[in-house]
Amino acid sequence: MPFHFAERIAHAPPSFLEELFRVSSDHSIISFAGGLPSSALIDVEGISEAGRQVMEDDGRTALQYSTTDGYLPLREYIAQRYRTRLGVPASADKIQIVNGSQQSLDLFGKIFLNRGDHVGMERPGYLGAIEAFSLYEPVIHTVPIDEQGLVPDAFERLIATHPVKFFYGIPNSQNPSGCTYSEERREQIAGILSGTDTVFYDDDAFGELFFDGKPRLPVKKYLPEQSVISGSFSKIIAPGMRIGWLYAPPEILKTFNIAKQAADLHSNFLCQMVLHRYLTTHDLDAHIRNIVSVYGRRCRLMCDLLDDLLPTLTHTTPEGGMFMMATLPAGISSRAVFDNGIQEKVAVLPGMPFYIDGGGTDTIRLNFSNADEEKIKTGMERLARVINRLIRS
Amino acid sequence: MPFHFAERIAHAPPSFLEELFRVSSDHSIISFAGGLPSSALIDVEGISEAGRQVMEDDGRTALQYSTTDGYLPLREYIAQRYRTRLGVPASADKIQIVNGSQQSLDLFGKIFLNRGDHVGMERPGYLGAIEAFSLYEPVIHTVPIDEQGLVPDAFERLIATHPVKFFYGIPNSQNPSGCTYSEERREQIAGILSGTDTVFYDDDAFGELFFDGKPRLPVKKYLPEQSVISGSFSKIIAPGMRIGWLYAPPEILKTFNIAKQAADLHSNFLCQMVLHRYLTTHDLDAHIRNIVSVYGRRCRLMCDLLDDLLPTLTHTTPEGGMFMMATLPAGISSRAVFDNGIQEKVAVLPGMPFYIDGGGTDTIRLNFSNADEEKIKTGMERLARVINRLIRS
Repeated sequence: MPFHFAERIAHAPPSFLEELFRVSSDHSIISFAGGLPSSALIDVEGISEAGRQVMEDDGRTALQYSTTDGYLPLREYIAQRYRTRLGVPASADKIQIVNGSQQSLDLFGKIFLNRGDHVGMERPGYLGAIEAFSLYEPVIHTVPIDEQGLVPDAFERLIATHPVKFFYGIPNSQNPSGCTYSEERREQIAGILSGTDTVFYDDDAFGELFFDGKPRLPVKKYLPEQSVISGSFSKIIAPGMRIGWLYAPPEILKTFNIAKQAADLHSNFLCQMVLHRYLTTHDLDAHIRNIVSVYGRRCRLMCDLLDDLLPTLTHTTPEGGMFMMATLPAGISSRAVFDNGIQEKVAVLPGMPFYIDGGGTDTIRLNFSNADEEKIKTGMERLARVINRLIRS
Repeated sequence: MPFHFAERIAHAPPSFLEELFRVSSDHSIISFAGGLPSSALIDVEGISEAGRQVMEDDGRTALQYSTTDGYLPLREYIAQRYRTRLGVPASADKIQIVNGSQQSLDLFGKIFLNRGDHVGMERPGYLGAIEAFSLYEPVIHTVPIDEQGLVPDAFERLIATHPVKFFYGIPNSQNPSGCTYSEERREQIAGILSGTDTVFYDDDAFGELFFDGKPRLPVKKYLPEQSVISGSFSKIIAPGMRIGWLYAPPEILKTFNIAKQAADLHSNFLCQMVLHRYLTTHDLDAHIRNIVSVYGRRCRLMCDLLDDLLPTLTHTTPEGGMFMMATLPAGISSRAVFDNGIQEKVAVLPGMPFYIDGGGTDTIRLNFSNADEEKIKTGMERLARVINRLIRS
């Protein structure tokens, strides 16, 4: 029989995230296409021990229904970390637990966007956000980024000319570009938004992963009541537990909570308790230092290999995170690099899904967190063969 | 600053689920208001052991990102159980894992409902469904139920007069009424829907919890390609893991999967693996027999006490599930029973949130799964005092 789906479904962009998981399941392919943190760096033993303790001490509570806002001690831990790391006045009542950052995107879109409303994001922009927002049928505007972050003139023009409900950005190690906003740009953005009704949505999936170990001040520091920050344990502890959060003014959080309750009552309570136990019995900072030292080495290695093996390709030089972006030599399409790469057993992600206007055909996103140095070396050699062959032909 | 939320937020009914959790946190109150399964019947030791095994055997996989559809062996287990229990041709490709049944409600609404579309449900109807669907701004029609299920004439009239995208019902131990559709009514419903474009959404949270241990044939048996069934481990294993599923035709599931991916990428993978390990190393049928024998006793005790202590009150007589509904003596309002009950340390749930038309003011929902027999006895005595005092005054 014919099913009459809602019109919003026609607005869903073709899915790429799922494709990535499929590529990553062929183990003969070295994949720089996905967005996985390193499995080897997940503290399986520590999380397992935390799980044993929670089940022993309070298993019946962990396995029962709970409240929508999330496990209070976990929310207090998150708030405390914001206060000490970033000097922002976070408190538990400003934190809502969600199923990873992706759910913050969905629910934020849900509470703010009527069909036809205006929303802004970076160009290129995170495809998970494009997918989430698109289902609420907004008009999505993009503002280009350079190595310093959002281009201020273009940002100012957008805010001046359209009633943008919120602007979604990733100031720290942006996905896909790997760029980090400079401090000056953050202040400029806050200045431009100040006095307007546009909320700044700071997707901070990577702020803990700067190779120099130093936090960057969030836009929220300059715009406290007009911005939200979404965070996640996926990149620093483990993605499989699907626990993230939204840090927002209480007026926003109250509405967000209604949407969260209607969406799934509450997030997995067992894992909230296990995470909290893990965080309070382990040295998170030492764990993160270990992650960033590994990712930092992998990132530098990848940059060096690109420079050596593919001098006609340009690329960003990330300060942290998990991704960099490369622009292919003139005349080479990312689709061809993808297709030929699969045959050569190396996967990259074409840039197109990060451009809602059809751009990005000469760009690829490269993930450096999931492959070890040996694989990065072999994979980059394969990629160089693929691209050099395309240049010659 | 003023936040300009989407118009759909104005359609959100006042939240009651959260209120219930609050009442249940005051331990001096005996609560029949909530919807919790019995904590004492959760197999903490067994789940804990399954968790230990998963972490030891494959912790790194359990803690990493995974695919949107869900853990394949778990989906195969669910499909196999449908085939043997209900004789319907389920297979893993028709099963999508979600964060408890509530997420099926949200995502189903999301993929089907444009603003102003027509949707049907029972009167009284499950408030979690009202909350989820309302955010997509449909026109919600209701069809009354009696002790045999949906009233066929009213159902037929609705389907004949409105382009209902889907009809949402709970044929097994309906929430809030506790009624179970008769087999004849199921066939009638399928007959009325056959040849129309209306999908039947069967929320089967309680189908495993019949006191006689016998499954009832789903409407899907008569209407295979035009119906979906949502299920959940919350009532038979543990709600805190937030794992449920939707069983649907592949054409629906493909679109549902896009919405699921945009909503949160995938459900908690650790708990999917732990659940599967638990299910394949424990006797689920024996576990369920234990639950239903306890719930059956509690239900009969509650019915008997109501008959003895409050003969002027009428109530449903459930065949399973966790709830019954009572109609108060003439002139007594459920709001007064609720308010006076809290003072007397007994909580019931007023029926109003289950009626989108403002009805139900003389009804209360009573949960019999969460309080033990001692508490049911004391709580019913308190309730009788409250109601008899209201009758006298």
